[in-house]
Amino acid sequence: MNSKVLLENTRKIKPIVHHITNYVTVNDCANVTLAIGASPIMADSIEEVEEITSISNSLLINIGTINERLYKSMLKSGKKANEKNIPVILDPVGVGASSFRKKITLDILKNVKVSIIKGNASEIAFIGNISSKNQGVDSDPALDNQSLDTLIDIAKTTANITDCIIAMTGKTDIITDGKKTYLIKNGIEELGLVTGTGCMTASIVSSLAAANKTSLLEAAALGVLIMGLSGEISLDSLRCRGLGEFRCELINTIGNINYNIINNNKDVEYLNE
Amino acid sequence: MNSKVLLENTRKIKPIVHHITNYVTVNDCANVTLAIGASPIMADSIEEVEEITSISNSLLINIGTINERLYKSMLKSGKKANEKNIPVILDPVGVGASSFRKKITLDILKNVKVSIIKGNASEIAFIGNISSKNQGVDSDPALDNQSLDTLIDIAKTTANITDCIIAMTGKTDIITDGKKTYLIKNGIEELGLVTGTGCMTASIVSSLAAANKTSLLEAAALGVLIMGLSGEISLDSLRCRGLGEFRCELINTIGNINYNIINNNKDVEYLNE
Amino acid sequence: MNSKVLLENTRKIKPIVHHITNYVTVNDCANVTLAIGASPIMADSIEEVEEITSISNSLLINIGTINERLYKSMLKSGKKANEKNIPVILDPVGVGASSFRKKITLDILKNVKVSIIKGNASEIAFIGNISSKNQGVDSDPALDNQSLDTLIDIAKTTANITDCIIAMTGKTDIITDGKKTYLIKNGIEELGLVTGTGCMTASIVSSLAAANKTSLLEAAALGVLIMGLSGEISLDSLRCRGLGEFRCELINTIGNINYNIINNNKDVEYLNE
Repeated sequence: MNSKVLLENTRKIKPIVHHITNYVTVNDCANVTLAIGASPIMADSIEEVEEITSISNSLLINIGTINERLYKSMLKSGKKANEKNIPVILDPVGVGASSFRKKITLDILKNVKVSIIKGNASEIAFIGNISSKNQGVDSDPALDNQSLDTLIDIAKTTANITDCIIAMTGKTDIITDGKKTYLIKNGIEELGLVTGTGCMTASIVSSLAAANKTSLLEAAALGVLIMGLSGEISLDSLRCRGLGEFRCELINTIGNINYNIINNNKDVEYLNE
Repeated sequence: MNSKVLLENTRKIKPIVHHITNYVTVNDCANVTLAIGASPIMADSIEEVEEITSISNSLLINIGTINERLYKSMLKSGKKANEKNIPVILDPVGVGASSFRKKITLDILKNVKVSIIKGNASEIAFIGNISSKNQGVDSDPALDNQSLDTLIDIAKTTANITDCIIAMTGKTDIITDGKKTYLIKNGIEELGLVTGTGCMTASIVSSLAAANKTSLLEAAALGVLIMGLSGEISLDSLRCRGLGEFRCELINTIGNINYNIINNNKDVEYLNE
Repeated sequence: MNSKVLLENTRKIKPIVHHITNYVTVNDCANVTLAIGASPIMADSIEEVEEITSISNSLLINIGTINERLYKSMLKSGKKANEKNIPVILDPVGVGASSFRKKITLDILKNVKVSIIKGNASEIAFIGNISSKNQGVDSDPALDNQSLDTLIDIAKTTANITDCIIAMTGKTDIITDGKKTYLIKNGIEELGLVTGTGCMTASIVSSLAAANKTSLLEAAALGVLIMGLSGEISLDSLRCRGLGEFRCELINTIGNINYNIINNNKDVEYLNE
């Protein structure tokens, strides 16, 4: 993974990332997109989403606070993104939590060519099951305690079924296109105590993908790695005395991240098929 | 008030708090819910709110940026919460500011069994007056300068009229079910200079209530106390040099709060009827 | 510009600023409104916006995440604000990015008497062109490198065409009513790396305008100056080690701003016609 080139491209091109996302974490997503060197645009009205997607370099769809109105805009933007050949990133937040989310996620995957799906083990497994057996599993914390081999298998299977790159976050992050796989051991539990770190990860992935259209697997892996590594660095900071400061430090660290910091990190493993 | 047990239950059970809330302070509500040890879910679409409420341990309704769409979802979720017997917490933000808010608040109270209403003196008095004299008072700053006895009377009357626990914030916070009453003298004016500290208080109350269904009065009192006490501790912090830092320190402090910190605080008084 | 009186009025009157704004930066807008000494109300539902505007001292319209529903509320509030004779401030975020934003901005300017338009050079030029030639230019980064004289001309022309005060932000901020003009050289590039600093500027302007209805040009100039100066002070702070901290320091600085800090600043120039 040539993280130097991926990062430099992003900061040079300063790509526009069209977000159709939830209202809970949207501000952090915008700030993290700026911190990594890209430019966020949030627009979700059916009257303008196609035009906004047209001037963007990637499209990030996040179903965190989905409704019918947003869903229609997502479909419209997704099709336009496919037409323009820019990457579409899907963050299926809580896809197992309601049949509405399940329906929408399936519909998006049917109607839009998604490049990368970013989710936790439950969300990825749910999507894999939907497509293979048309039967969902609910959010399943036990999944995280499965063996690494089992988790890799879930990620690869879902990648193959959906024909998407899967960025599955967890104790070990697994990023795979079904053939080539990155395993990333960075990351800390405390990231789960700040809302939106998952959404922010998808924003970083979408920023890197926007500027590196021919290296989407690497962009997805680097994006996930940057969040995990930044979590470690931020928590270690002397100034981090609690969750408020941790969140603040996260944006500091992501804004200051560079090739050397990433290169000194030894927690990435690459598995060729 | 056994704050040790109440807090330990919350952190052990890690209850899910379904928020249907405003888009202004929603991110802080999510972060404070995580900081106190619970798990926030924000979902407001009519197609899924019943399912989301079904997997949750409490429901928090906040009318801060209310509209027809949200209102319908609130009613649907509220009824489901009653059916599932999980506590419903209502934050009637600015109920006196428009006839639309008044109508919605009345309708919710008529159709949903609300467990706890959290509001400032104006909001609580307004609800009390609505129900007793069907005549509203507008937001009335003079209320805060009324004698403590008068304020206690307003809280108790509203509790009795609505058959809800009232958590009325102010210089002295008054938490009452109409019979038993807690008076809490923690809190500082500066909390009013950070947006959403009222909403965050309701999130903490909803988190504690979710894990302590049989001690709702105590949960409400402890939730209000934690915000006031955390405000004092955060403002005293050497690092707090302004409103930006104060907000950040608040989340730090709430995340680090424990039984000993609370127990060393002497500003709580318990009044049995 | 009598910044002492303008600021003191704001902190004494504590005016209410009705925001109909986007969900990306709304929380920062609320916090910055409190920090400067005013009181924010966010309400956008068609059923209540007129009542909310009626109890407010200024109305801020921001089209950042516009849709049909919000647009109708903006028109209704704008007309009520005109009727009540309170200032209306327009932030035409990304007006050149879609024909929907263009249409809405034109419609608002046609149906509502706007007092102040706050925007970057591209947005202001776009509005100027719309009104003069009914033909839009897209967002044009090259504009920022135009000569100062050219930029002043764009601001003045747009002021004259629209009959609004123009607060045009950039390397040199240009605030003009078409005749009298302030040039402000404060501000730093890094403000562009935190989302919403433009929206926050409009909130500060709207707060000052609400309390100083007869000095709107000065209120607009002071509001823009406060953001630029606070950016400089915040970035210089020893504690500012990254973008997360910079954002936090910004709110600190704005909350602590006073007449002496502003008066020691020499980067303001006043041009009489």
